[in-house]
Amino acid sequence: MQNFDFYNPTHILFGKGQIAAISAHIPAGARVLLTAGGGSIKANGVYEQTMKALEGRQVTEFWGIEPNPEYATLMKAVEIVRREKIGLILAVGGGSVLDGTKFIAAAAEFDGEPWDILTKGAEVKRATPLASILTLPATGSESNTFAVVSRRETGEKLAFGSPKVYPKFAVLDPETTFSLPLKQVANGVADAFTHVCEQYLTYPAGAALQDRFAESILRTLIEVGPKTLSNPTDYESRAVFVWSATMALNGLIGAGVPQDWATHMIGHELTALYGIDHARTLAVVLPHLLRVQKAQKLEKLAQFAERVWDIREGSVEERAEAAIRRTEEFYESLGIPTKLAKYEGIAAETPQAVAGKLEKRGMARIGERSDITPAKVREILALSLAA
Amino acid sequence: MQNFDFYNPTHILFGKGQIAAISAHIPAGARVLLTAGGGSIKANGVYEQTMKALEGRQVTEFWGIEPNPEYATLMKAVEIVRREKIGLILAVGGGSVLDGTKFIAAAAEFDGEPWDILTKGAEVKRATPLASILTLPATGSESNTFAVVSRRETGEKLAFGSPKVYPKFAVLDPETTFSLPLKQVANGVADAFTHVCEQYLTYPAGAALQDRFAESILRTLIEVGPKTLSNPTDYESRAVFVWSATMALNGLIGAGVPQDWATHMIGHELTALYGIDHARTLAVVLPHLLRVQKAQKLEKLAQFAERVWDIREGSVEERAEAAIRRTEEFYESLGIPTKLAKYEGIAAETPQAVAGKLEKRGMARIGERSDITPAKVREILALSLAA
Repeated sequence: MQNFDFYNPTHILFGKGQIAAISAHIPAGARVLLTAGGGSIKANGVYEQTMKALEGRQVTEFWGIEPNPEYATLMKAVEIVRREKIGLILAVGGGSVLDGTKFIAAAAEFDGEPWDILTKGAEVKRATPLASILTLPATGSESNTFAVVSRRETGEKLAFGSPKVYPKFAVLDPETTFSLPLKQVANGVADAFTHVCEQYLTYPAGAALQDRFAESILRTLIEVGPKTLSNPTDYESRAVFVWSATMALNGLIGAGVPQDWATHMIGHELTALYGIDHARTLAVVLPHLLRVQKAQKLEKLAQFAERVWDIREGSVEERAEAAIRRTEEFYESLGIPTKLAKYEGIAAETPQAVAGKLEKRGMARIGERSDITPAKVREILALSLAA
Repeated sequence: MQNFDFYNPTHILFGKGQIAAISAHIPAGARVLLTAGGGSIKANGVYEQTMKALEGRQVTEFWGIEPNPEYATLMKAVEIVRREKIGLILAVGGGSVLDGTKFIAAAAEFDGEPWDILTKGAEVKRATPLASILTLPATGSESNTFAVVSRRETGEKLAFGSPKVYPKFAVLDPETTFSLPLKQVANGVADAFTHVCEQYLTYPAGAALQDRFAESILRTLIEVGPKTLSNPTDYESRAVFVWSATMALNGLIGAGVPQDWATHMIGHELTALYGIDHARTLAVVLPHLLRVQKAQKLEKLAQFAERVWDIREGSVEERAEAAIRRTEEFYESLGIPTKLAKYEGIAAETPQAVAGKLEKRGMARIGERSDITPAKVREILALSLAA
């Protein structure tokens, strides 16, 4: 096992009616900025529950954080936080609202040009306290340090991370997710599944418990994903999915193990170029990446085959390939194509373009062994583009 | 799944040489009280590493916290904390030093008689900040809210819990545990294993992921326990065991599920009466409790049989019984007798005595369904006392 730091101070408030519980976590008279996306939280009652729980606080509202939150939009909220001397930013919505809010919180206290946080890895020394009422289980952003922000004018989608942007608390009420479009639920299952794979499908590192935890989340998502899609208002399966998505990216299964975030890095470029949903970009990359890196990941792929997919027949290579096929079938069963060729308007030169963009960003060697070169990125995307 | 709060802000510093990392977490000039047990941390180099990392701080030392930490001892440290205006108490040692330190931290800031925290459940509103360098993996105390304190004069062993006593940080360096007596390592494996069972072997509650996490820890302990006992200086297996013990009782697998702490409650009375090691009292209670409660726990016992012990033959009852037998065999394989009859000096009236003591403490109905009555406690201990 590798040495590690594990620190996750987010207070999770999980279950039915838990929005009301936030009042115990926000001082009376606090100056709160509520951040949100479109109007879905008004339609499903979440906004009303939230405002009721915020009674007695000075609440300012900032609406319009879009999917793949946009730098220019977020900077408008930064002005409000500074001007209104906001003490807590409360993100109400899905992963994009929350990611955007993390950036707002960091940028509001940043000396200099906040864009540097994303492009130059400038250190986040302080951040306005933030918290979340999460209505879309997927990204794990509700209890992790990461956020992704886009800038359309330059076609960029960039990540940052800092322990300063851990949400103080996060409400996870599965009932608030019942009204989600099924496509977003499917994306959430795929996103969480991929997060686990990226922390698990590397090489053996003597981390037996982290491996079993990762396998636990994968098996649970495989069981519960189809259930919660076919019966979206079944509390039990939705609750299990919501908690699985949180656990998939809260630092737990990644502690002390090698990680391979190449799928995310490649996927971000596809979203930046074509606007493909984040989770779908992961599904069009991961299986092909696993094939290209099969030799390097062979032991873990065989373990994945046996413990997650119950595949015990055949050679190690055959079991690894069978597990990759099952992974593809799983994404497809969620209604998510795993071939880039199935998405509209994809240019033939995409593999070259993405490889070039990553190289330009200083990501010429990615993956857990830093051996995913631009040539391999091209190979992965060429496989995905082949019909 | 039941509604739950999950909050665990302890910063874990895991791995080789991590004691040095504490200096980043303690301000220069801080007034630190180092708490410890006997001299083992001097023999194994932990004390020296700790003092080096504490250079520049004002360090007072308090030695002599005994196994099953004693109220009278701890109150002496409380005086020092108050008198010296200690800003951080650093527990260096095993679970007893840490549990004692949690009580010191709570008692030092308590208005009134601190004994009430243990006997009357008086609320802990504040506590002196504390942290830990843990040298004995077992109790999970390094990142949870619980502590157990004894008072020999009255034969009492009592628990309290408060989020105020979460350690700020906990160092887990597996190498610092290499010199432990094997008996203590075996006890640690048994303690962690039992912690998981008490949060898992209840009734199905729609918490699929928590179940799989619990099963993950159990399987890992079953694999790694014998390895780390037969090869105590093998870093890899020790590291896996250390992390498993932390995960067994840090709130994670208990979130949103029913729990049955009756084994601990009965076990505490056995330690108070006879001084039997804590973990050993759990091993002489759990299997017999599972038999007495077999009908109530049948579904989870069958799941435990299949997923943890790979038992798939026979009726549900037969599989449940087989899993209980395997659990007994596991404790015995660690060198821990599961029959109270095997310990010296146990009075024949022990079942009555323990049941009476629990009843007197207001614990007349314990277990996840509050159906473990004094009559059942007597039955459990009578089974354990039968040769």
